[in-house]
Amino acid sequence: MSQEEFAGIFPYLVTPIDQSGNLKEDVLRDLVNHLISKGVHGLTPLGSTGEGAYFAWEVKKKVIDVVVKAAKGHVPVIAGVNEMTTHGAVKQAIATERAGADGILAVLPTYFPLADIHVVEHFRAIARAVSCPVVLYTNPKFAKWDFTIPMLEELAEEPNIRYLKDASGNTGKLLSIANTLQDRIRIFSASAHVPVFVFMIGGVGWMAGPACLIPEQCVNLFNMAREKRWEEAFELQKTLWSLNVAFQNYSLAACVKAGLEMQGFPVGSPLPPQRQLDEEGKKIVSQILTNIGVL
Amino acid sequence: MSQEEFAGIFPYLVTPIDQSGNLKEDVLRDLVNHLISKGVHGLTPLGSTGEGAYFAWEVKKKVIDVVVKAAKGHVPVIAGVNEMTTHGAVKQAIATERAGADGILAVLPTYFPLADIHVVEHFRAIARAVSCPVVLYTNPKFAKWDFTIPMLEELAEEPNIRYLKDASGNTGKLLSIANTLQDRIRIFSASAHVPVFVFMIGGVGWMAGPACLIPEQCVNLFNMAREKRWEEAFELQKTLWSLNVAFQNYSLAACVKAGLEMQGFPVGSPLPPQRQLDEEGKKIVSQILTNIGVL
Amino acid sequence: MSQEEFAGIFPYLVTPIDQSGNLKEDVLRDLVNHLISKGVHGLTPLGSTGEGAYFAWEVKKKVIDVVVKAAKGHVPVIAGVNEMTTHGAVKQAIATERAGADGILAVLPTYFPLADIHVVEHFRAIARAVSCPVVLYTNPKFAKWDFTIPMLEELAEEPNIRYLKDASGNTGKLLSIANTLQDRIRIFSASAHVPVFVFMIGGVGWMAGPACLIPEQCVNLFNMAREKRWEEAFELQKTLWSLNVAFQNYSLAACVKAGLEMQGFPVGSPLPPQRQLDEEGKKIVSQILTNIGVL
Amino acid sequence: MSQEEFAGIFPYLVTPIDQSGNLKEDVLRDLVNHLISKGVHGLTPLGSTGEGAYFAWEVKKKVIDVVVKAAKGHVPVIAGVNEMTTHGAVKQAIATERAGADGILAVLPTYFPLADIHVVEHFRAIARAVSCPVVLYTNPKFAKWDFTIPMLEELAEEPNIRYLKDASGNTGKLLSIANTLQDRIRIFSASAHVPVFVFMIGGVGWMAGPACLIPEQCVNLFNMAREKRWEEAFELQKTLWSLNVAFQNYSLAACVKAGLEMQGFPVGSPLPPQRQLDEEGKKIVSQILTNIGVL
Repeated sequence: MSQEEFAGIFPYLVTPIDQSGNLKEDVLRDLVNHLISKGVHGLTPLGSTGEGAYFAWEVKKKVIDVVVKAAKGHVPVIAGVNEMTTHGAVKQAIATERAGADGILAVLPTYFPLADIHVVEHFRAIARAVSCPVVLYTNPKFAKWDFTIPMLEELAEEPNIRYLKDASGNTGKLLSIANTLQDRIRIFSASAHVPVFVFMIGGVGWMAGPACLIPEQCVNLFNMAREKRWEEAFELQKTLWSLNVAFQNYSLAACVKAGLEMQGFPVGSPLPPQRQLDEEGKKIVSQILTNIGVL
Repeated sequence: MSQEEFAGIFPYLVTPIDQSGNLKEDVLRDLVNHLISKGVHGLTPLGSTGEGAYFAWEVKKKVIDVVVKAAKGHVPVIAGVNEMTTHGAVKQAIATERAGADGILAVLPTYFPLADIHVVEHFRAIARAVSCPVVLYTNPKFAKWDFTIPMLEELAEEPNIRYLKDASGNTGKLLSIANTLQDRIRIFSASAHVPVFVFMIGGVGWMAGPACLIPEQCVNLFNMAREKRWEEAFELQKTLWSLNVAFQNYSLAACVKAGLEMQGFPVGSPLPPQRQLDEEGKKIVSQILTNIGVL
Repeated sequence: MSQEEFAGIFPYLVTPIDQSGNLKEDVLRDLVNHLISKGVHGLTPLGSTGEGAYFAWEVKKKVIDVVVKAAKGHVPVIAGVNEMTTHGAVKQAIATERAGADGILAVLPTYFPLADIHVVEHFRAIARAVSCPVVLYTNPKFAKWDFTIPMLEELAEEPNIRYLKDASGNTGKLLSIANTLQDRIRIFSASAHVPVFVFMIGGVGWMAGPACLIPEQCVNLFNMAREKRWEEAFELQKTLWSLNVAFQNYSLAACVKAGLEMQGFPVGSPLPPQRQLDEEGKKIVSQILTNIGVL
Repeated sequence: MSQEEFAGIFPYLVTPIDQSGNLKEDVLRDLVNHLISKGVHGLTPLGSTGEGAYFAWEVKKKVIDVVVKAAKGHVPVIAGVNEMTTHGAVKQAIATERAGADGILAVLPTYFPLADIHVVEHFRAIARAVSCPVVLYTNPKFAKWDFTIPMLEELAEEPNIRYLKDASGNTGKLLSIANTLQDRIRIFSASAHVPVFVFMIGGVGWMAGPACLIPEQCVNLFNMAREKRWEEAFELQKTLWSLNVAFQNYSLAACVKAGLEMQGFPVGSPLPPQRQLDEEGKKIVSQILTNIGVL
């Protein structure tokens, strides 16, 4: 599966846990089956929404195993590698590929501020350690660094660094990246962006948490965009946008987990110090899902 | 003219001055005639690019007189009111309307931080002092306040507050505003946004400095968007985007003034402490204008 | 008076106005006399607290005339020059000196972001236009620029640039400035700093709004510091600190004006869009002044 | 040892590693012995400088064991607990206490933004899991949260939450905390602060990286402050300040590790993506250490 291009809707899977923090493998398997049945084009466990920065490797390994096995090759699995040290990230990237993931979403959390060269060398080290495609991830709101275009040009020289998921919300920057990097780096939208605009820029897909809750709608949006039915795509986008907004206002993992619980997937709460969505948040998410027609 | 809706390309006019800071009325008149001959739909003197925050009222009054007279009613003139005190802004708004402006672009610079209620009451006072339409302006990068959606809902109750020019660059927020305010507030794109996306959201025009340099191209872009020829519009947008980027990297007024000088309009330098674009900046702007075919 | 060194407590005078925005000259005169009788070492009209960025020159001119005349040479008057353009600032600086001010506090508000060279040339132009001492002012919270040490070193070459009032609250930076610039630039504390620590660093005085409300206490603090009675100075500092904190939480001018009204000086409200302190703010300021014993 | 109050100079120990990332136990032991011989009052392994956010628990456990054993009870050991999840932090806190640490420095790195209640419950959970004193740590430059005074008041109700190390650099806030919390929370200075001012506020010590490089000088500073020889203390402070500044400009761990290498402790480089100090940085640190007389 790894020779094809990644494109389309890749829900950021949550990591379902019980009150003791143990992985609920069954729930994860059900969620995978449900999403595939709704037509998603791939699956991304252990991204931001998947609390990839919080879980120990033992749990993460199990998540990858469950998702790869449940996906049965029907859709590609791009698993998150989310480690503060380069050494740790490289080790997990290798193990992730070995466990059957088709690609790696490389996230770089940090404690100390990072200089550009630190960031470039980190992602380069990951790319060189694996043979599968690597998706670069940047979220200047969560990290203390961001990719400049020269940094992306440098990283695009690695043959398997082929995608970028940018969560900045800065559409103009994406257009500049698309204009400069062209096909050397393909762009995935995040939920901080208006996905239909990213598709117009040439973005190849949407990789984010809300797709767990509205997979069919996301697939429809993607198909309209691929067929350049922009008017129709934008009308659909307008109805879906409220969910992206909720994600920006509330804690990501808490928001998707609350919505999935409402839809009948007992995925539990995020790991503390994150907490369950509060009552007001739940009411808002419930209202949005009802309006979209998925509750 | 004030009964019609404002829509289309409204270049932010620079304020041409000689080395002593005196207004070059002839150059301003030539620029107005040139832009009208290129098909722009309106003119906006004394916005950010017009250094509206920097000039004394005597100069601003002259600018409005020259532009209104040169426009001869062919296109509407929306003049900037850019004052720190509410009292001063109200006085200038009244005088601006009396001088024949068809609308007011209300900009609120500030020294002290402002609370939401300060901001709302300032714009409301301006709106109530005039009968022409008022365009709200916000630029969170230059000011220390920004409109929330509840603030816009409150201001939209004033019958002549009808437009918003948002220079935040946050396209998602514009979509939220369009979804919530609908037709109560019509949106103009700024150069921090990708205009074609703002048009898709329902934006009625583009009001910004770059339109001084590429008026025909902007009009074409607007026409394509109005006719929903999105593919074509986006292809054109891609070629024009580099100019928006230059505006974000360099000082606004310096950037447009340098470009107009290259195009044969001796508009001079910005008022100190702002300065002429440096040599490197000029080279970049010159290259961009050459690539677009307007030099 | 201008040949002596400036040192000690320089209250930032408010600008008393009636509801129509007219200067209440009598109230200003009374305030000047009151503060001199309490032992302050100088007076600073038209600083931040004096709403120097908001008033028209006609009002500012009157303020300077009233303060200079009322001070009768008993204490030096350092008047604020607070203009966005270099040309305007230079003109006002010259007129301010001619009107009898002993020094100039140079404040640089801005609409567009400024590069270091813009800032340096602005202050240099002011310094070269007058012969009296110039106090540089920086407040990174209100402006979009700040002095670096190299910028200060460049400016210190102007013989009459002799003082710095830094409102950053960054005590460590002040220590770095003091270590590097030594006596070439003398430091005044702002109310964002803990004044006693600035005195320990070598600061020559305190120039800020709270001194209008607690002039005697400030003079005592300064005297203790000058006599190196640090323990005693710090004990007094602790009791006064709550007033500085209130200033950081509430609007500066609104806060001092409210306090002066409570002390019997009918100075009015700040110019809109600024507003009178709200009831909660007044209660807090009143409580603090009562605790300090000045109400 | 845990019944006494913590006070004085607590160097933030680096974590010495070889090129493969393995702990150099001998070097760590030598460093501990050296610092104790220089008179420090305690030791803090696994703080920011100790790269506590980066190392796996196996390495951290070894660090604690080596330091506790080498300290031989001569000085207290306050070990860092630096984990993103509450569950992980609680587990490590318990193990840290069992391993013989006299106190815990609780650091909360995060990927997602945190609300006040998340933060309070995290630290409370740690405090309740151990019986030794807990030092709260906050660094708004590295994390995405900060303590407000109400949060500190809530946490101070836990009997073993007794100290705060604040790395904000905001001296005024420390004074507000000291005024409000009094003896309920004792303050340690960080290197972002001017330590002598924190001592004047009532701070009980200094807990930071530079103390590894200039232990004697720090002890002298502390003693002068304790004896209220403020003039002398401040004169010494001035000569030491350049080292704090270097720490703010360069990466913390890289800076101390470079300095220790110069002083003959082969502690190695920080864990990638952090890197060794570059040549310019080394030159500056070397010059500073030479000026202070410790090289």
